[in-house]
Amino acid sequence: MNDRVVLAYSGGLDTSVAIPFLAEKMGAEVVAVAVDVGQGGEDMEVIRRRAIDCGAVESVVVDAREEFAARYCVPALQANALYMDRYPLVSALSRPLIVEHLVAAAREFGGTHVSHGCTGKGNDQVRFEAGLAALAPELQVIAPARDHAWTRDKAIAFAEEKGLPIDVTKRSPYSIDQNIWGRAIETGFLEDIWNGPSEEVYAYTADPAGPREPDEVVITFDRGVPVALDGRALTPFEIIAELNDRAGAHGVGRIDLVEDRLVGIKSREIYEAPGAITLIAAHMELENVTVERDLARFKRGVDQRWTELVYDGLWTSPLKRALDAFIAEAQRHVTGEIRMILHGGRAVVTGRRSEASLYDFSLATYDTGDTFDQSSAKGFVELWSLPSKIAAARDTRR
Amino acid sequence: MNDRVVLAYSGGLDTSVAIPFLAEKMGAEVVAVAVDVGQGGEDMEVIRRRAIDCGAVESVVVDAREEFAARYCVPALQANALYMDRYPLVSALSRPLIVEHLVAAAREFGGTHVSHGCTGKGNDQVRFEAGLAALAPELQVIAPARDHAWTRDKAIAFAEEKGLPIDVTKRSPYSIDQNIWGRAIETGFLEDIWNGPSEEVYAYTADPAGPREPDEVVITFDRGVPVALDGRALTPFEIIAELNDRAGAHGVGRIDLVEDRLVGIKSREIYEAPGAITLIAAHMELENVTVERDLARFKRGVDQRWTELVYDGLWTSPLKRALDAFIAEAQRHVTGEIRMILHGGRAVVTGRRSEASLYDFSLATYDTGDTFDQSSAKGFVELWSLPSKIAAARDTRR
Amino acid sequence: MNDRVVLAYSGGLDTSVAIPFLAEKMGAEVVAVAVDVGQGGEDMEVIRRRAIDCGAVESVVVDAREEFAARYCVPALQANALYMDRYPLVSALSRPLIVEHLVAAAREFGGTHVSHGCTGKGNDQVRFEAGLAALAPELQVIAPARDHAWTRDKAIAFAEEKGLPIDVTKRSPYSIDQNIWGRAIETGFLEDIWNGPSEEVYAYTADPAGPREPDEVVITFDRGVPVALDGRALTPFEIIAELNDRAGAHGVGRIDLVEDRLVGIKSREIYEAPGAITLIAAHMELENVTVERDLARFKRGVDQRWTELVYDGLWTSPLKRALDAFIAEAQRHVTGEIRMILHGGRAVVTGRRSEASLYDFSLATYDTGDTFDQSSAKGFVELWSLPSKIAAARDTRR
Amino acid sequence: MNDRVVLAYSGGLDTSVAIPFLAEKMGAEVVAVAVDVGQGGEDMEVIRRRAIDCGAVESVVVDAREEFAARYCVPALQANALYMDRYPLVSALSRPLIVEHLVAAAREFGGTHVSHGCTGKGNDQVRFEAGLAALAPELQVIAPARDHAWTRDKAIAFAEEKGLPIDVTKRSPYSIDQNIWGRAIETGFLEDIWNGPSEEVYAYTADPAGPREPDEVVITFDRGVPVALDGRALTPFEIIAELNDRAGAHGVGRIDLVEDRLVGIKSREIYEAPGAITLIAAHMELENVTVERDLARFKRGVDQRWTELVYDGLWTSPLKRALDAFIAEAQRHVTGEIRMILHGGRAVVTGRRSEASLYDFSLATYDTGDTFDQSSAKGFVELWSLPSKIAAARDTRR
Repeated sequence: MNDRVVLAYSGGLDTSVAIPFLAEKMGAEVVAVAVDVGQGGEDMEVIRRRAIDCGAVESVVVDAREEFAARYCVPALQANALYMDRYPLVSALSRPLIVEHLVAAAREFGGTHVSHGCTGKGNDQVRFEAGLAALAPELQVIAPARDHAWTRDKAIAFAEEKGLPIDVTKRSPYSIDQNIWGRAIETGFLEDIWNGPSEEVYAYTADPAGPREPDEVVITFDRGVPVALDGRALTPFEIIAELNDRAGAHGVGRIDLVEDRLVGIKSREIYEAPGAITLIAAHMELENVTVERDLARFKRGVDQRWTELVYDGLWTSPLKRALDAFIAEAQRHVTGEIRMILHGGRAVVTGRRSEASLYDFSLATYDTGDTFDQSSAKGFVELWSLPSKIAAARDTRR
Repeated sequence: MNDRVVLAYSGGLDTSVAIPFLAEKMGAEVVAVAVDVGQGGEDMEVIRRRAIDCGAVESVVVDAREEFAARYCVPALQANALYMDRYPLVSALSRPLIVEHLVAAAREFGGTHVSHGCTGKGNDQVRFEAGLAALAPELQVIAPARDHAWTRDKAIAFAEEKGLPIDVTKRSPYSIDQNIWGRAIETGFLEDIWNGPSEEVYAYTADPAGPREPDEVVITFDRGVPVALDGRALTPFEIIAELNDRAGAHGVGRIDLVEDRLVGIKSREIYEAPGAITLIAAHMELENVTVERDLARFKRGVDQRWTELVYDGLWTSPLKRALDAFIAEAQRHVTGEIRMILHGGRAVVTGRRSEASLYDFSLATYDTGDTFDQSSAKGFVELWSLPSKIAAARDTRR
Repeated sequence: MNDRVVLAYSGGLDTSVAIPFLAEKMGAEVVAVAVDVGQGGEDMEVIRRRAIDCGAVESVVVDAREEFAARYCVPALQANALYMDRYPLVSALSRPLIVEHLVAAAREFGGTHVSHGCTGKGNDQVRFEAGLAALAPELQVIAPARDHAWTRDKAIAFAEEKGLPIDVTKRSPYSIDQNIWGRAIETGFLEDIWNGPSEEVYAYTADPAGPREPDEVVITFDRGVPVALDGRALTPFEIIAELNDRAGAHGVGRIDLVEDRLVGIKSREIYEAPGAITLIAAHMELENVTVERDLARFKRGVDQRWTELVYDGLWTSPLKRALDAFIAEAQRHVTGEIRMILHGGRAVVTGRRSEASLYDFSLATYDTGDTFDQSSAKGFVELWSLPSKIAAARDTRR
Repeated sequence: MNDRVVLAYSGGLDTSVAIPFLAEKMGAEVVAVAVDVGQGGEDMEVIRRRAIDCGAVESVVVDAREEFAARYCVPALQANALYMDRYPLVSALSRPLIVEHLVAAAREFGGTHVSHGCTGKGNDQVRFEAGLAALAPELQVIAPARDHAWTRDKAIAFAEEKGLPIDVTKRSPYSIDQNIWGRAIETGFLEDIWNGPSEEVYAYTADPAGPREPDEVVITFDRGVPVALDGRALTPFEIIAELNDRAGAHGVGRIDLVEDRLVGIKSREIYEAPGAITLIAAHMELENVTVERDLARFKRGVDQRWTELVYDGLWTSPLKRALDAFIAEAQRHVTGEIRMILHGGRAVVTGRRSEASLYDFSLATYDTGDTFDQSSAKGFVELWSLPSKIAAARDTRR
């Protein structure tokens, strides 16, 4: 029986060209798998048929939008996942989900190999291959762009030579990856890190400087999961999508940073993630209200490690699962409502309300009703500072 | 000889009233010490004389503005110090400096006691008393508001009874602390955490929604210290002050959060810190460009601990000094320029330039000139994911 | 109705004297609660009657030995809990359990107050009162030794005056606390930290230098819980007790250190914990075999924080629960057998065997059967060291 | 001009054979560099000549014993460096030093390449190559064992074919690496992790069960550096060497564990490190006496990260330097004397004495002279436990 290569298919030039390339190079049959993670753009059925037209023996489209939001974006939200305090892990979250569906397709269609279009200097190769190593170590991986030095120019030439149904003239100067959690943009002129991004690189967000009226939104969480907007019960996917629209309209969630890749280099990245950034701001403040201090302090380190692990492609690692258990316990009381203003590129919390609140008005107030016993404070301060005091006396003595 | 109380004096109602109160209660002489940390407002000489008018035997004003910026704000900047990822430690930074000057005054004027106006439910009592325990354990501390249940109403009655030269009718409904690094506001109606702040609580920042042209600024750092704006060499104090003006004019640096106090309660806090927030954003991005990945990742935990320690009043602790040593080493190459746009409440980095950059165009580019050897990647990914792969095989087996 | 004080009762001088003292001082009825946590010594029924003879209106004995082992010692074992890398938290573990039974007794017998015999400079007052604050904030706490400056000499005089049925001449020069997890000893001559401990301070362990034949033991774990010794299925309590005997006979588990107390001072402590130290050594090595590297590395920090929290009296804190969730997940595969030699004060692992092992002979061996693909290593090393390489080149350049 | 390969030369079979192999394979001249890090065994001059006899054009011996002790072992001691809480980094410490001398030789003798004998599944390849990438990225690396699948059998056949002056019949069944800080042993029968080590694998340590009198030693430290034994001033190298003898005679420092290698596999390792283990025990206890609590707690995490970095081959990384700065500051007061008993496989601290001590008898004692103010404790405990109390009330409420 022939080898069968299950290909992570986007519908774009590179992975379309990969279909005849893999067939020719390996004498294999190609099964194309396109996963809908809310990236928008072309109709998924058009994409499915294009793979067939390019020579795939099977072409599968998976609507994973709700699954992606619930099983990947929500955990990231609960971890307040911002790599380097900025980047909400857009691509890093979709890769392990795509891997799951590639493996499922390999099992359904007798796949022996899996192929992806990543290069050897990015993070996504790691996310694909680490996931595959964990879930289906028996599948061999082919990465044409990396292992066969396959470039854009070669791809275009090959597409023209084979007469593939792709309009190569339409190719964008940008390298883009997008899903419901956000959008990543790389392009030549931004590789000079002194250059600022121009307005046309953005698609999820309007110019924050544009004149418009503020939008007020109330987000409801139940144990760390967003469950409603303005009182309307919605799925996580629907909430993210609506906030992408509403916060995006106000230019919320643009990110521009020099980023540390796992492969050891620094790169310049532009992202836009209006829904993600809005939700994380809301979630962080609801944690401020409902999570106890020591837990909150330790959780920052857990959140950072979770984020680095996922960025580094280790979604399936045992450490990830143990951090998940910590975070799940920490979310037990993250229930309540956050009111925000979306405006001028900012998503600003203006109110919080929770039955699980640890904010105690009677302890906090300086007005009538104060129940805090100030006489405890003197002894507290004395013992709290005692180690420093003893050390300072020692330092003076020596 | 009489006891002499060195009083941390602000010029306001509470500490003015404390002068005759301490004199009467303890039969002591009062030495008033007012420290200028860039809080603005009244002329310091006016404040100095008021203390005398209220009965102080000595009244001292210390211009600590440059010292505060250089020795307290700059280290906080190098630690990217944002307590709970939000609050730039405004008051927490000035207290240890004030303590130093109180101790100096006690030594100069024969002080036997030190007094501050903090209550027993705030953080500042800890910062004062932990600092004093370390620097001058022989001085006794008196905190009238805490230890004698001294309230605002009592203070006003006492002021009127004694005919003190204070206009008690002018008192603000807000409790405010401010210095060059920022401004903190507490007030009754914000103790309901569902209420949003109103525009009039702000003084350092204009409404971010107001229409105006963006301001572009280039900040130069030398080993983590800001040294110039738009190419003009300035002191740290001058830089913070100018950015307070320029970023404040665009509404940058407003903060509203529920915060974990050291004394064990949650409180609602409003801050504005246009210069601090602008500088921290610039500094973080310059670190992204010049600090190696593993160091950057570990430094986040160091920064968090530094920030918590300072928030918690342990500026003089041995751990603080060791964290300082770590941070100083990490700043060795944080040299270069950051270009930012100040507009609409946001301070956004648009460019970075550094001779110490670790961003290597030839490794990062996808265009001509790429020197990254992609063939290394396959082996890297294999060993990187090997532990997860072995664990996944074990999990499947069992 | 009278106040009723529920007293944590040990049967010793101090808590016996506390019965009439509390009755007299407060006009209260005293309910004595003695909890058997495997401390050995006197018969619990004798202790129960003594409380009645001293004037208690109720006297309760709780056999909490299995509960203590299963719910307190086993979690400590799973956290490899060694405070300052040495002390297995003996007393810190029993306090929260005693608190639970005090609260239960207060609810059963209408207690309004709770009393303990701790001083104000130790850790146990914190463990008692933090536990009570969490579980039963409505109960008021009385600590005669701390709050009424009650000393040993006063206690003896009071006992003689009241004719209490206690032989005050038998009092030990040592202050001792013991349970199934270990034994803590403090005494005057050890307060000089240059003095070594003498042989007679020890009760759980024989002199390690004594001549005897080694003892070999095989300990079986199931998901981090010890379940058998030498193939005999036993409860955690039985396993700890048997190892206390067997490892104690070889002098295993003596500890002598200067320790950081929560109240801010350093103290000199002697412990002996033969079963605990043996089990922790076994458990750590089984984790080495069955826990993936990144998880193991992060777990060290989790273990340390867990241990500090419990030492610091915060057994009931939200952070503790979240760390528990992490640890529980990490124990999922900690199943297998560890063979040890007990001899000469040492408990040494000599073999490990596990179906959940991640040790893969075919990857590890240098002999025939090696399946490790060495060709991956070169690329791995290159990218692994790339950030350091780029940084070194920058450092040279500048 | 010919290529010149600078070879890390041990004098053993593999690296001796590498000399003609490299010459033949690459048409290169070989410069042999043997570094004395206290490994003992053969005379270094004999080793030097053997390289020449095998065909090296230059052969250099470097006496790096004092340098190794002072610049590599002492920092490890200050970090209490025990990888996985057990292994004192023996080989991991010598590799970066050897790299420095290889680079120096390459610069002196015009080397174009560097060669080492490591395989592709161990850690040492990483330590060599990461070091070289940082210090001399222009040098190319050749690793015959890894890159040319060079095995022991091939090496023997080649040695016989070439008539090299090596007695191949004498080869040990053990793979051994040793230096003044310890000795590492791997061998076939220990690859079954249920097998215990046999007595003959050990060379630095006698059987701990052997009958002998205890040895008492007093170790003096100055700012974390060991400077004297029993009052005799010695260099770090001399101290380690003497303790290797004295502690080794009592069987101190045997280690047997399953270890996580950087390349992703678990391996079984046997070590003996009598001097290192004795010194680390002494140093840890002196830190307990002289280092403030919060600093000590944080330092555990710093020590762990330092140890992992060095184990992982990143001696030259920027993070390592920043951790060094932290540790150096933490050692400022680690000055004093530790008295230990060496006996029966154990190195046990029995006394500590320091002018920089933070142990304060008058605060710690329960006898006459107590100066601790117990009245502070009640307030301390109340605020310390307040967050848990508020959270527990919330949990009950919901």
